Parts: sequence; C-alpha cells; structure tokens
Amino acid sequence: MIHFSILGEPSQDNAVLATINTSQSIHRLLFDCGEGVLTSLPYSEVQAIDHLFFSHFHMDHVSGFDAYFRANFNRTSKENHIWGPPGAAKILQHRFQGFWWNHAADLDALWQVHEVHADHIQTTHFLAHEAFSVAYPQPVRPHSSVILEHEAFSVQALPLSHHGVSLGYRVQEKPRTNIDMTKLAALGLKPGPWMQHLKDPQYQQETLEVAGQAHSTQDLRKALLIQKQQGSLAYITDLLIDDAARKHLLPFLQGVETLVCESQFHPQDLELAVKNHHTTPDLVAAVARDAGVGNLFLFHVSQRYRRETWQEMLQIARSIFPNSHFADHWGM
Amino acid sequence: MIHFSILGEPSQDNAVLATINTSQSIHRLLFDCGEGVLTSLPYSEVQAIDHLFFSHFHMDHVSGFDAYFRANFNRTSKENHIWGPPGAAKILQHRFQGFWWNHAADLDALWQVHEVHADHIQTTHFLAHEAFSVAYPQPVRPHSSVILEHEAFSVQALPLSHHGVSLGYRVQEKPRTNIDMTKLAALGLKPGPWMQHLKDPQYQQETLEVAGQAHSTQDLRKALLIQKQQGSLAYITDLLIDDAARKHLLPFLQGVETLVCESQFHPQDLELAVKNHHTTPDLVAAVARDAGVGNLFLFHVSQRYRRETWQEMLQIARSIFPNSHFADHWGM
Repeated sequence: MIHFSILGEPSQDNAVLATINTSQSIHRLLFDCGEGVLTSLPYSEVQAIDHLFFSHFHMDHVSGFDAYFRANFNRTSKENHIWGPPGAAKILQHRFQGFWWNHAADLDALWQVHEVHADHIQTTHFLAHEAFSVAYPQPVRPHSSVILEHEAFSVQALPLSHHGVSLGYRVQEKPRTNIDMTKLAALGLKPGPWMQHLKDPQYQQETLEVAGQAHSTQDLRKALLIQKQQGSLAYITDLLIDDAARKHLLPFLQGVETLVCESQFHPQDLELAVKNHHTTPDLVAAVARDAGVGNLFLFHVSQRYRRETWQEMLQIARSIFPNSHFADHWGM
Repeated sequence: MIHFSILGEPSQDNAVLATINTSQSIHRLLFDCGEGVLTSLPYSEVQAIDHLFFSHFHMDHVSGFDAYFRANFNRTSKENHIWGPPGAAKILQHRFQGFWWNHAADLDALWQVHEVHADHIQTTHFLAHEAFSVAYPQPVRPHSSVILEHEAFSVQALPLSHHGVSLGYRVQEKPRTNIDMTKLAALGLKPGPWMQHLKDPQYQQETLEVAGQAHSTQDLRKALLIQKQQGSLAYITDLLIDDAARKHLLPFLQGVETLVCESQFHPQDLELAVKNHHTTPDLVAAVARDAGVGNLFLFHVSQRYRRETWQEMLQIARSIFPNSHFADHWGM
C-alpha cells in the first residue's frame, strides 16, 4: 500500500505527498506544490522528497515551490528531479533564477527537469554553481506512458485537457517478494543469509544450502515465497471530463487502489466547470466506479462554496461511488 | 506617525508593512517579502499594497513573493511598483515568468520594476498580456538618495554592504497642515469650504471670505494653521555595521521616529556576523543612539538561538539604547 497525505485545506491550494516504504528504503513523491502546502510537513521530510511531479504551472499548483527549493536547492545527498508537461524546463529555470545567487560558486547541486511530451521525455540539467543560468538539454528518451522506472515503483503519466496540458500521474509499487515465516518454521528451516538468494531472481543455482544441507531452490521458492500486495495511487487534477477524456482515463486508472482527483465545481455549476476545464464530483465518481478504483479522495474544491456545499459534493460522489472521501484532516 | 507591522515570527522570515494614513488617503508600503510573511494579512490588504521594496533577493527576503504576485498580478486599480537593488529587473522578470500564462491575452496589468543604482534609477516595464516576456527599459532618472516623491510621503534609499548591495530605506511623511479647531471656535468662525483655501499653499489671495466677511488670509493662517507631527520609519536589514557603514548610516537615520533593523547574531558571534555581513544588537543600538532615533525595533533574529538568547539580545540593545523593542506579537 502506498501511504499518502493530501496537503492543504479545502478551498486552499492542495498537493499530495505519496510515500513508498519497501522496508529497505523509503521513497517520497510530491504531486504539485501550491502555496503553503509544505507548512504541515517537518522540514526534514521536505528535504527527503525524491521527485516533484507538476500537473501544470498555474499559480495554485506552483506558488509553494520556493519553500521546496529553499529546503533542497543545494542537495547532493539525493538527486533532484522535477517532472512536468511541455514548457516545464523554461518555467523552472525562471524559478531557479528568481534569487540573488551571489554565493553560487560555493554550490554543487544538479537539478534535472523532465518534460513529459506525448511520446518522449526531454530532460534538461541545471547547475547550482552556474546560478542555473545555462540549460543543458539531454538526449530525448521515448516513453509509452511509463515515464519513470524505479526498482521500488513506476510512474505513468497521462496528458489531460485543461486549455493546454495538465498531466495526470499513476504510481505503481513494484511486486515485492517476501518469505512466509510461518511456513519456514513449519519446515523446520533456520533463517539465514540463504533467504536473500531465495528472494533474488538473479540467483540461478539449482540448490541452496540451508544449515549445511542442500535443498532444491525451485521447491523452496514454491513453498516459501509470497508476493506482497502492491499499492497504487493516481493523482489527477485540473481536467475536463468528457467522453474523449473518459476513453483515456478509464484504462489509465483501471484497478488503481487510490485515486486522488480534483472536484472543483458542484454539478449545478457544470457549465462553469466545462468552460474552465475543471470537473464535478458526479463525473469523477462515475470514472472511479467504471475504472474499478479502490478508494476515491476528492480534493481541490472551490472556495466559491461553503462547507455545507462541499459536504453535499461528497454525498453526490458517494451516491455514485460509495468509497468516496475527503482528507481526514478536513473534518467532513 | 507612520503605522507599521513587523510581519513573521522570530527566527522565521520577516518583513515590514508601513501604512501612511493622511486621512485623505491610505498608502501601504511593504519592505521585503519572505516566506509566509503575508499570511497574517487579510487578502484585501495584500491587494492594497502600493509599493514593494526589496532590500535584496536572498531566499529569506523574496520567497513569499508568489503570494504577493498572486494577489495582484493583474491589478489595474492601482499601479504596480517594485523597488530593489541593481539586478532587480532580471530577477523579477524571472519571477513573473515562473508560471504558465496561457490566459495572458486576457490580462491588462503593467508592472514597473525600479532598480536603485548609486546615483540613478533604472525603471523597466513588463506587461501581463505579454506574459512578462519583454523588458521595456525606461529613461534613466538621476536621484540623490530620494528615490520616490509622493504627495503624502517620500522614500530614500541607502546601499548597505551584504557581500553585494542590500538597500536600506527611509520613509518620511510629508508635512501636513491642519486647522486648530479650538482656536477656530474661540474666534467665533464657522467651519466651511474656506478652510480648504486656508490650508492650500496655492491659494494666494490676500483675503478670505468667511460667512460673508473678509479676513486677512495671512492673519488667519497665523492664528489657525498647525503643522501635524510627521512620522518617519527606516528599514535596514542584512548589513555589515563597521566604521565605514556608520558614516553613511548616521546621517541617513538622523532623527528617524522608528528604526526597524536586523539583529541576526548575538555579540558573542560577532565574527560570524562580520563574516556573513550581518549585525548584532549592540552595534545596532549604538547606531540608534548616535543617530537620535525615536524607537528601535530589532527583527530578523537567527534561528540558531533559543528564546532566552533572543531576550538577552534585546537586553543588550536596551543597555545601550533603552527604547529598543521586539514586535509585540513576539511576546518577549
């Protein structure tokens, strides 16, 4: 399961922090970075975020970037990756350059901005010690929706329509192999370093020595290995949901464990939603239902409404897709 | 008197909002715009700020700019003025361009960035409907420290040393003429539109008609006009205070009603302060004393210290200059 937090309050800027804990390592992915969304996180957690994914660069999605950048601008303990739609490299270079860098010569960090185009990724590098003044485009890589392959997870992207591109993202944990400790005890086998070989698909020997005795690797694997349940999370915001969009959204979201999706307008304001390329809880809930989503979390609700209307919007979603929620800390 | 608020908490980013109320009109000047400094202000007050003055563009002074810009990016009800040291136009153009401006064609605002050089001001215009992509330099204007003359106030600037320029600012209310209403009653004169003529230095007639009777303008002025006490406020941050700096600071701050000044380091860390071109409460207090300042407010204290040390720093300042304070809301 992917742990996630919806950051920010209703009617204010929102973002999502997803955490993937493999028990070997923790990976933190931030989706969008509006004003004040990081204030609820410990500074050390902001410094530990691995990837920042932007849907797009409207003010309510990027106005908190200074807080992220300030915590990490010279980070060399981790790589610095930012993802976004076409245009991301230029906009982020402007953001990097929005400071007085008189101490640039003392800095070491490398920043990598990845622009997700329809069928390829254009990465551009920027160097802190050059005060981010030069853009270094890297060789283009093709992609077929999966934009990031990590040993612990993968990330897919889907372009959505928001009078231009807003990117939707889906994170999928990689299958993880564990050893069934109850069965291990039942077979009278002692835990030991041999268990690493058992789990490692690279280990190709026919036998494995356990406490001085040879066992068939294949038999042991059959008896002891279990696949851990894999989590998935999709982040979708600022989009028009029409029939054309549904055609792409349904396969993209198929079976996702958690969908976090904007729900800016009440269905009574559908006309406004369509005009502004935003959406409504009934449209989102129908997508969640038809894509076989586990749980739907609505966020990014408009400040034009009061609390009672947001609650009503949640009820509308639930009437179509019962597993609909707001963030716990919204108290609704 | 100029009303002012120190924004932000101790050890976090700080800024100062100065408000000049002439009873005819209210003018709001913001000095620096670090992270989160605007959160304590009503949104409508952020929208009413007339001028934003930057000392310099280190992260702790500019990381809240997105919140200011978001409230005002298409403001046409007021002019949009930003002031700063040389380099301001480039840095601010980067900041203006740090968004996706797909709706630029619908925008109307003009933004004016004023770079304060040693003896001249270089203003550059930027247009929202061009997505701020073109810089329009305006004719250079000379200045002799006064950079802004308004009918209600003037602003002076002083370059300070911070491994580069940090600008100090001094705001001076213009003399205001009021009518002594007690004397008016004592003379048995009825209030009326003639009072506007009396206060207006452009009115040159020898006599003034009051309730059908002619009076000597000069005599009436002598008897009734009073000059209202004029306020002044100086904002000084991120500077080295050495003998050379004192030579410029003392005349600049001479007799100022309120001085808001950084006091980042404890005197025991003087070496660090000097190395980083920051200052200590004893040095600031000595400047306040020697310049005949009314009240000194210390701000921008380092997060390396705890509350007790900040309190000690205030006591050190008071031992040299008794009218030393922290912001009321800091509770110290």
